[in-house]
Amino acid sequence: MAPAFSRAEYNNRLVRVRAEMVARGLEALIIGDPANINWLTGYDAWSFYTPQIMLVDLQDGPFWIGRPMDAGSAKFTTYLTESQILAYPEPLVQRLDTHPMEFLADWMAGNGFATARIGFEDDVYYLTPRAVGALQAGLPNASWTGADLLMNWLRFVKSDAEIAMMRQASQIAEVTMQTAWNGARIGVRQCDLMAEITAAMIKGTPEFGGDMPALHPLILAGEAATAAHPMWNDAPLEAGQTVAFELGGCRKRYNVGLARTAHLGDPSDRLMRTSDAVQEGMMAVMEALKPGAIASDVHQAWQRVLDRHGLEKKSRIGYSIGNAYAPDWGEHTLSLRPEDQTIMRQNAVVHVILGMWMDDWGMELSETLHITETGCVRLCDFPQHVHVI
Amino acid sequence: MAPAFSRAEYNNRLVRVRAEMVARGLEALIIGDPANINWLTGYDAWSFYTPQIMLVDLQDGPFWIGRPMDAGSAKFTTYLTESQILAYPEPLVQRLDTHPMEFLADWMAGNGFATARIGFEDDVYYLTPRAVGALQAGLPNASWTGADLLMNWLRFVKSDAEIAMMRQASQIAEVTMQTAWNGARIGVRQCDLMAEITAAMIKGTPEFGGDMPALHPLILAGEAATAAHPMWNDAPLEAGQTVAFELGGCRKRYNVGLARTAHLGDPSDRLMRTSDAVQEGMMAVMEALKPGAIASDVHQAWQRVLDRHGLEKKSRIGYSIGNAYAPDWGEHTLSLRPEDQTIMRQNAVVHVILGMWMDDWGMELSETLHITETGCVRLCDFPQHVHVI
Repeated sequence: MAPAFSRAEYNNRLVRVRAEMVARGLEALIIGDPANINWLTGYDAWSFYTPQIMLVDLQDGPFWIGRPMDAGSAKFTTYLTESQILAYPEPLVQRLDTHPMEFLADWMAGNGFATARIGFEDDVYYLTPRAVGALQAGLPNASWTGADLLMNWLRFVKSDAEIAMMRQASQIAEVTMQTAWNGARIGVRQCDLMAEITAAMIKGTPEFGGDMPALHPLILAGEAATAAHPMWNDAPLEAGQTVAFELGGCRKRYNVGLARTAHLGDPSDRLMRTSDAVQEGMMAVMEALKPGAIASDVHQAWQRVLDRHGLEKKSRIGYSIGNAYAPDWGEHTLSLRPEDQTIMRQNAVVHVILGMWMDDWGMELSETLHITETGCVRLCDFPQHVHVI
Repeated sequence: MAPAFSRAEYNNRLVRVRAEMVARGLEALIIGDPANINWLTGYDAWSFYTPQIMLVDLQDGPFWIGRPMDAGSAKFTTYLTESQILAYPEPLVQRLDTHPMEFLADWMAGNGFATARIGFEDDVYYLTPRAVGALQAGLPNASWTGADLLMNWLRFVKSDAEIAMMRQASQIAEVTMQTAWNGARIGVRQCDLMAEITAAMIKGTPEFGGDMPALHPLILAGEAATAAHPMWNDAPLEAGQTVAFELGGCRKRYNVGLARTAHLGDPSDRLMRTSDAVQEGMMAVMEALKPGAIASDVHQAWQRVLDRHGLEKKSRIGYSIGNAYAPDWGEHTLSLRPEDQTIMRQNAVVHVILGMWMDDWGMELSETLHITETGCVRLCDFPQHVHVI
C-alpha cells in the first residue's frame, strides 16, 4: 500500500499549510479532522473513534498521534517516518480520570512546544472539549488560537490529481444511481434496495474499487421525504410514493454526491412542475458558477428561478465537497447562500443540491460541479428528470 | 414510522436520567451523542453532522434542537410534541462568525436556564469546543459541569426489549459473516467482497432489515492485518494471506460485533497455535463473565491463558456495546482491562474482541456476550475456528 498521491503533491500541501501557519503567527497546529489528516499525509484507517491527532509544526513534522494498534496504518498508508508516528499508551483510552491528550501535551512540552503559539481545530467532530482541555492544562504557557477550517480552505481549490480522483468517484456515483433506478419498484423493501445500492458504491468499476461515501446513503420515501436526512427502514416501497435518493461515489476518500428523484406510478402535476423548476434552477446555477463569481450571486441565480415559479427553499443550495470521512462529505467552507461572499475559483468542486422538502412530500436534484477555467462542468452524466416507474 | 420502543420504555429511561441528574445536582443536561438522543427519544436521522443537541430538563423536556430540514425526522421518529422540537435558523450553519448554539443559549436564557446548573457531554464526537463555548458565552450565569457518560452508564444494563433487538442484530451478524466465508477466495478484490458483505448487513433477514453498523466493516489482509482498523482497498486477495474480518449486524441502531479469521491456503503452525490459544482464552473469558464479576478479573482470566501460551496483547479485550452511530459501536463505559473495576451486571452486553496484531500478520476472534442471571451467552452462533479456504 502507498499514499494515494505523489510525494511531491503531499510536500506541496505541507508547504501551503506551513505558509498559512506563518501568516497567522502559529508555530504548531493541532488537527482532529481525519480528512485533513488524510489530505496532508495519506493516513487512512477507521481509527478516529479514539483520539487521533495530527500535529503540524514548521520543521520536523507532521506528527501522527494515535493508538498503538493503529500505528501500523500510519506506517503503511503514509510517507511518515518512524519518528513522526507517536503512539500513546493504550490504557489511556476511554477513561474519565485521564485522557490520551495528556500524553501529547507531555510530549509537546518536552519537544519545544511549551511556550509555542498553537492553533487548533475547535469545531470538528473528532477533537472534543476534554481533549482540548487536557492539551491546554498540560501546556499552560503555550498560547491557543482557534484555527478551524485553516486546512479546509486550502483544500477548496483541488489539484489536477484530486480532480482526476473525483472523476473516478463520479463514475462510481453514476453506476450507483443506475442501480437505484434499476432496483426501485413497488413492493421492494427499502433495506433490500439500499443493500444493492451500497454494494454498487463499494464495488466501484472493474478498473477501480469504491470506498464508503462519508455521507450515509439516503432514501427519502413517503412521510420520510418531508425531512432531509432520514434513515432507510424495512418497509416496502408503495404505489404513489415519490422517492428521492441522495447517493454518491467515493474513491480514496474523495466524495462525489448525486441526488435524483423517482416516482412509483403516475406523477402529480405538482411533482412535475416542481421538477421542471428545479431543473431550470440547476441550469441557472451552472451558468452562474464560474471563476470570479460570488457565492451569493450564484445563489441569487437560483432564487430568481424559484421566485418566478412561486416556490420557496430556505436552506443553502450547495457546498464545497471532496476529501471526507463520516459523517459529512461537505468541506464546511463554501456554502451557496445569500450570506456567503466566497469568490469561486478554478478547480473548486461544489455539490449543488436542490432539496425541496415539503409538508407531506419531497424531491431532490443534485450535481457535483467542477469549476473550470471559464465555467463549470458536471462530474456525473446522469439524466435529471424524475424517473417514473 | 414510530419509535423503536414503547412509550413506557422511553418514559422509564427519562425517569432514570432525571434521577441521575438530581443525584448530581443538575437542572439541565446537554447531550451531543446521537446514540443517547436515540436511546432517550427514538430520534433517528443522519443529521448529526450539523450541530444537533438534546436538552434534558426536570419537567417539560426533553427538547430536540437541530436544523429546520431535520425537524421532520423529530416529528416522525420520536414521541416529542411540537413544543419539544426546536429548529435553529438555517443561516447559522457552518459559519465562522456565528454558531447554532448561540440560538440554543438564547432560548435557554429565555426559558428559565439563565442561572441553571448545567451538565454537558464533554468528550463526545458531536459537541465541539466551539459549540460549548457558544453555550457558555450565552449563559454566563449558569454553572457548567462535565457530565460525559452519565447517560452511557445508564445504558450499560439493557432492558429485555433492547436484548430482543440485539438478538435480531446478531442474526444479521451471522448472515454477514457467512457471506464473508462464502465469498472470500484467492483473486477476489477486497472491495467486491466487502460489497457483498455490506449488502448482507443491510438486507438483514426476510423478517427484518438491517441498519449500517456504527463501526465501518473491516477486512485485515496481508500487510494491513498488522493494524486494527485498516480500510478495504481494491487489491485481490492473495494465496497465503491470513484475512481477519471485524463485521457485525445492526438493527434499529443496536449493534452486535462479530470477528473471525480465514486463511487462503495452508495455514502455518503459528496461526493455528495462536488460534487455539485465542479460542481457549475466549472460553476462559466466558467462564469469568457473570453478574458480580469485576472487569479486571475477567481480563485476568484471559491473561492467564495468554501467559501460558507465551503470547502478548497489550490492549483491552472488550467493551460494552449497544446503541450507536458512526464512528464507534462501543458505549465508552466498561473496558475489560487491568485498570477497570466495573462490576458485571445481568443484561449488560459486552463485545469481547481478541485481536492479535503481530509484526507482519494478524488474526481476530470476537463474540458479543449477553450477561445472564448466572453467566453469559453468545449472541451469535458461528464457528470460532480459522476458516481455511
